Amino acid sequence: MTDLARNGQAVTETSPPVRTAQNTVLSVDAMGGDGGPAPVVAGMAMAAKNIPDIRFILHGPEAELKQLLAKRHDLDGRVTIRDAAGVVKMDDKPGHVMRNGQDTSMWSAIDAVRNGEAKVAVSCGNTGALMGVSMVRLRKAAGVNRPAIACLWPSRSKSGFNVMLDVGADIKADADDLVQFALMGGSYARNGLGIETPRIGLLNNGTEEHKGRVEMREAHEMLETVAGENQFHFVGFVEGGDIPSDKVDVIVTDGFTGNVALKTAEGTAKLISELLRGAFKHTVLSRVAALLAMPSLRRLSQRIDPRRVNGGVFLGLNGTVVKSHGSADATGVAAALKLAFTLARSGFTERLAARVASFSPRGSAQTDGAGEAAQDA
Amino acid sequence: MTDLARNGQAVTETSPPVRTAQNTVLSVDAMGGDGGPAPVVAGMAMAAKNIPDIRFILHGPEAELKQLLAKRHDLDGRVTIRDAAGVVKMDDKPGHVMRNGQDTSMWSAIDAVRNGEAKVAVSCGNTGALMGVSMVRLRKAAGVNRPAIACLWPSRSKSGFNVMLDVGADIKADADDLVQFALMGGSYARNGLGIETPRIGLLNNGTEEHKGRVEMREAHEMLETVAGENQFHFVGFVEGGDIPSDKVDVIVTDGFTGNVALKTAEGTAKLISELLRGAFKHTVLSRVAALLAMPSLRRLSQRIDPRRVNGGVFLGLNGTVVKSHGSADATGVAAALKLAFTLARSGFTERLAARVASFSPRGSAQTDGAGEAAQDA
Repeated sequence: MTDLARNGQAVTETSPPVRTAQNTVLSVDAMGGDGGPAPVVAGMAMAAKNIPDIRFILHGPEAELKQLLAKRHDLDGRVTIRDAAGVVKMDDKPGHVMRNGQDTSMWSAIDAVRNGEAKVAVSCGNTGALMGVSMVRLRKAAGVNRPAIACLWPSRSKSGFNVMLDVGADIKADADDLVQFALMGGSYARNGLGIETPRIGLLNNGTEEHKGRVEMREAHEMLETVAGENQFHFVGFVEGGDIPSDKVDVIVTDGFTGNVALKTAEGTAKLISELLRGAFKHTVLSRVAALLAMPSLRRLSQRIDPRRVNGGVFLGLNGTVVKSHGSADATGVAAALKLAFTLARSGFTERLAARVASFSPRGSAQTDGAGEAAQDA
Repeated sequence: MTDLARNGQAVTETSPPVRTAQNTVLSVDAMGGDGGPAPVVAGMAMAAKNIPDIRFILHGPEAELKQLLAKRHDLDGRVTIRDAAGVVKMDDKPGHVMRNGQDTSMWSAIDAVRNGEAKVAVSCGNTGALMGVSMVRLRKAAGVNRPAIACLWPSRSKSGFNVMLDVGADIKADADDLVQFALMGGSYARNGLGIETPRIGLLNNGTEEHKGRVEMREAHEMLETVAGENQFHFVGFVEGGDIPSDKVDVIVTDGFTGNVALKTAEGTAKLISELLRGAFKHTVLSRVAALLAMPSLRRLSQRIDPRRVNGGVFLGLNGTVVKSHGSADATGVAAALKLAFTLARSGFTERLAARVASFSPRGSAQTDGAGEAAQDA
């Protein structure tokens, strides 16, 4: 760690960080979600029950957090509270938080990663502010031009999910950025989903090679060149309909398109579920049918439950940040924490950094040393 | 009509065009869909049953079409066959068809609009080729920089649909183009859906005014200025989740983003319907439930049936072209024909042209005369 990273702002510690050789520590922002700290603490208890080696540094107003923790015996001896009075609100402007947010639980959560006390931070707060604070406190990893946000998308793939990035860190991406997104997304699929040789596709408005904007065609060419030495299989261009398919594990796009696609899919699923509910209320017979169909519908909604895929991951910084939905309940928070634990345990941050460092833009040859460092990244 | 438009290529007429003051003639490409001419003719018969004033010029191999028509007495005396031997295939390259497609039914169908025999053409064929042939034969309307493809999107709005454009005519759009899309989409909503003052939104990665790419913010400013004098209400930025909402009637975006969003929504709906089918097959009880639920599920699938919203419309040319799904059956074709009839009857092509002509880019004042011409366009 650099001296710069050690010179973080002062934080009020209430007890020494819990950390042993076996344990993995996550830095958790207790505040900023729609439900306040209660679902966060409940989610921590849920995760702790299933993961013996998980430990937490929890950031927020000490008195309030102490009260919530007192009732959660699953968490006894596994949580360090770090007092932070300020809370980032959902409508706070990112720029304002980046300049004035030093006293907030979000800032404190990110700084615990900056200071090396935890490898991964988790927050349910304001996405823009979280990205902003993560950028200024963690800084971009060496060689990364644009960090990206990756999400998990319910799919027909064996793991049940595909990775899509960027879904909103930035609004632009040139060909080099798209290639970096592919490397970062591939590394995430390997370390987060256990897919050894991920299949990576480039989102376009058609699958023919002549289709799309210039940067798409440039990135296509570069990805064909670098796929082999970077442990992924490049499947070429994919379309919107392929995002949930089993022909691809990682879908690469710019943050504008990715954001629109993600919200369009969520909106479509919501419309269908509303219409489905309406259809079942239509007649007496359909109400009876609805009762009988309930277990089937519940199975379906579990399959595409956004809480199960809870956790956008910020990639390309000196540290990994998992963004949980603002409206996440205990189940949603637990899913985000489990993902964060998996990534922290695998040494994901370092592996991703090695992977990106081994890549020289425009497809030129990598150095042998860097190539070795990137093995399995 | 210009002399240029009258100098179309020679076509083999088998009988004089059916056209009276009361009747509205559509130019229909019989070929190029997945099912060949049979579903097209069946769809024409279906539409003719409900619309007494509808007449057709039908383009394709004469002998084959005559045979199909012989069985359809609803169409007696209402169809003129125009013989065309060539067929555009789904995998033909647009450029190839634009250079060598003179003998095809698609070309012939577009030329009947070019020659003023019909106001609207309908085809189930290859989208890229149809756009290409439409561009070279019809040419862009005066003042239009980029034509656009508009689609109908199932929504919570009163009409049941929202209009979205561009969904794939071009991959780019600058601020002026986006403003023209808004004018064209507004005109479509007025004439196609009967919405007097459509609510128009600009698709972005967030609803705050500082969000998005430069051209989005520029278009936002221009649309605020021109909304009043152009008979629409500008609702500002909307997100992917708002596309099926009832807060907007027309969603404006570039063709790359629109194409990705449309295919993402279709892919999501398909995934959910597969998972739903799977969920109902899970146990004996769920199979019984499925039987009882069938009417409800049918109601739902009718509501979002892509056949009901069948018909992407090419806007901004000297003539209107309705693109039906390649896989459309009779019901789908009939829906596209009904839409084409509504647009032809309303004088949509001229109204849209007047609307665009009345607008001077960058929000400068329109001339009074053009403003009057554009009333109700």
